[in-house]
Amino acid sequence: MYKINDNYLKLPGSYLFSTIGKKVRAYKEANPDKDVISLGIGDVTLPLAPVVISAMHEAVDEMSKAETFKGYAPDLGYEFLRQAIATHDYKARGVDIAIDEIFISDGAKSDSGNIGDIFSVDNKIAVCDPVYPVYVDTNAMAGRTGDYIREAGEWSNVIYMPCTAETNFAPELPNKEPDIIYLCFPNNPTGSTITKDELQKWVDYALKIGAVIIYDAAYEAYISEENVPHTIYECEGAKACAIELRSFSKNAGFTGTRLGFTVIPKELKSGEVTLNSLWARRHGTKFNGAPYIIQRAGAAIYTDEGKMQTAKQVAYYMNNAKIIRDSLKEAGYSVSGGVNAPYIWLKTPKNMTSWEFFDLLLEKANVVGTPGSGFGPSGEGYFRLTAFGSYENTLKALEKIKAL
Amino acid sequence: MYKINDNYLKLPGSYLFSTIGKKVRAYKEANPDKDVISLGIGDVTLPLAPVVISAMHEAVDEMSKAETFKGYAPDLGYEFLRQAIATHDYKARGVDIAIDEIFISDGAKSDSGNIGDIFSVDNKIAVCDPVYPVYVDTNAMAGRTGDYIREAGEWSNVIYMPCTAETNFAPELPNKEPDIIYLCFPNNPTGSTITKDELQKWVDYALKIGAVIIYDAAYEAYISEENVPHTIYECEGAKACAIELRSFSKNAGFTGTRLGFTVIPKELKSGEVTLNSLWARRHGTKFNGAPYIIQRAGAAIYTDEGKMQTAKQVAYYMNNAKIIRDSLKEAGYSVSGGVNAPYIWLKTPKNMTSWEFFDLLLEKANVVGTPGSGFGPSGEGYFRLTAFGSYENTLKALEKIKAL
Repeated sequence: MYKINDNYLKLPGSYLFSTIGKKVRAYKEANPDKDVISLGIGDVTLPLAPVVISAMHEAVDEMSKAETFKGYAPDLGYEFLRQAIATHDYKARGVDIAIDEIFISDGAKSDSGNIGDIFSVDNKIAVCDPVYPVYVDTNAMAGRTGDYIREAGEWSNVIYMPCTAETNFAPELPNKEPDIIYLCFPNNPTGSTITKDELQKWVDYALKIGAVIIYDAAYEAYISEENVPHTIYECEGAKACAIELRSFSKNAGFTGTRLGFTVIPKELKSGEVTLNSLWARRHGTKFNGAPYIIQRAGAAIYTDEGKMQTAKQVAYYMNNAKIIRDSLKEAGYSVSGGVNAPYIWLKTPKNMTSWEFFDLLLEKANVVGTPGSGFGPSGEGYFRLTAFGSYENTLKALEKIKAL
Repeated sequence: MYKINDNYLKLPGSYLFSTIGKKVRAYKEANPDKDVISLGIGDVTLPLAPVVISAMHEAVDEMSKAETFKGYAPDLGYEFLRQAIATHDYKARGVDIAIDEIFISDGAKSDSGNIGDIFSVDNKIAVCDPVYPVYVDTNAMAGRTGDYIREAGEWSNVIYMPCTAETNFAPELPNKEPDIIYLCFPNNPTGSTITKDELQKWVDYALKIGAVIIYDAAYEAYISEENVPHTIYECEGAKACAIELRSFSKNAGFTGTRLGFTVIPKELKSGEVTLNSLWARRHGTKFNGAPYIIQRAGAAIYTDEGKMQTAKQVAYYMNNAKIIRDSLKEAGYSVSGGVNAPYIWLKTPKNMTSWEFFDLLLEKANVVGTPGSGFGPSGEGYFRLTAFGSYENTLKALEKIKAL
């Protein structure tokens, strides 16, 4: 008699964004005349850059002729893409990453979920609180998080690192020793960042206690301030303790195009075993590559034209972020984020819970945001808005929020 | 101190096709003048069908305009694709599959590896021997297979179902009780199939002992004979015991384009829990959809034009299969497969081992095939050739093999 993975049954409710989707659909069905604006899920709205479109048309044409047709891709991804990443994302920032330390994937969500495969179930994870739900949920599925304590909204075997106004929305070194530390800067959901010196403290800490850092740098393109690290490998010693996850979703609008990559330096070892070799084995056995057409699309953003065009997209969204920040402050909200990240994190007014504010915003302003409590217990009383809407919708939404 | 997943260290050597790739690269480097033909890895060579190319160009154009741009896809995949699958792959064969029982993915390799996530580590698997290595390797990574016994080339906790000339290359019901049964028909690597009545016996058996069947139907398009089931759901009761994996790689040449799907009927339950709900949760948490462009490409093959064009591709490969079969028989080889599948399975001559024959073929005929022993202990003494080369190369390769 087969047995299911019981850990799935411990998961509380459904994935956050599925729940929001259902609530919004129900509201729209009941109110077909209302024009609902979403500043909720972190989904982009600008079309793909012209250079990306051209590259994909070319690649599609290649797939139409036997001489240029592409079958299975190389296990780690095409070299033209890995080379572009090594050069522009790393070498240009003074960091040496070899192309066989880069693994092309279908996106950072898959990678951040799948990376757990190469670790024993018997590891204690530490996460920021609030946090991108995928880190915790996928560890729960693997049986690494203990039991869910509904009253606390916490898992019994997870080290939570509160990120609140008191800590300037940055985590502090935990007082219990974790084995795997998830960090995401610029942060989703709070939009906060830490300086290179502050990140160095985490690297030093991980090296000292023998922990591995899973560093999600999906929002790197949104960094506007000096002294905020673009990659964890800018820190001394990081290659011996950190895995970095990167995405094309937010810097180039690939949410529906799907591309990402993971960096695992060969210096990262458990005894004699490199984590690079374990991930290579997983990648070669449980994945069959991102589509050739999409890898060509990704490579296009590293050209001069591509860099210019995607920088313009990022600037467009960051202008939205400024509008959201400024309008909310004007309306008396307490606001953070939105300077080095496309996320604005606000304190709910009048001690409302996150979901109360969600309902208010949906029903009275017809704006969809994301309840902070969906990201963890310390997110309660907070709310996330994203800068990924159109300029016009962002303006309209903020007018309505100001009028609440 | 973090701990790695030790199960990875039990895996013998590297993934079969990586090993072959390395051997072939080494030979080519040492013999740059030789023209090596690959009938090894199951990778297609024909360009994508015109209808697929048009659909992708259109979809790329949609991604270039804000009004038609697509961000994150629906969790299960676009409805236009799931509806086409439900209609053409199932309804047309008298099988009712609801569109929320279909999960679009980036391919059957990922699905066949990831499906293990929803099952407890404490399940005993049964596999055909020889077998597509991904089923066993991914279960080994999950800790479900016990220890690898090098001398036997077997895992201590796996039920092997020998498929040899004696069993007509079909498995017999095992004498130990498995929890999860992997079946693949038309079979990779042997190219064999079983009739609907024979498959019904497996369904009845699974229902009787409470096992789940993971049915890999990636080669369904190659079925040419009557009474060979195109989907396991043609069998009575299969919806209560079987998960079906499907691919676009072989019926439409998507090996480098990446698309597949998994069917989990809602009748498939462990107590009150539907496996459909578990897989939906995994899909929504650890995956973010196949690219919109690729889902459009997949939908195109279900149009009348698409069906005609892809049927022509399948016919082209099956003509190669006939050439391989006939030529090998002429040369005195003992051959099976190649009638309902793009794989030809031959007995190595003169009691050579599979790898000895691999080396002979590479060095003397400059043809790359796949050693049967790479697929499991009962594959020893056999060898796989694939029909996915070009017509010209297939002819050339067989001339050389005949001249050995």
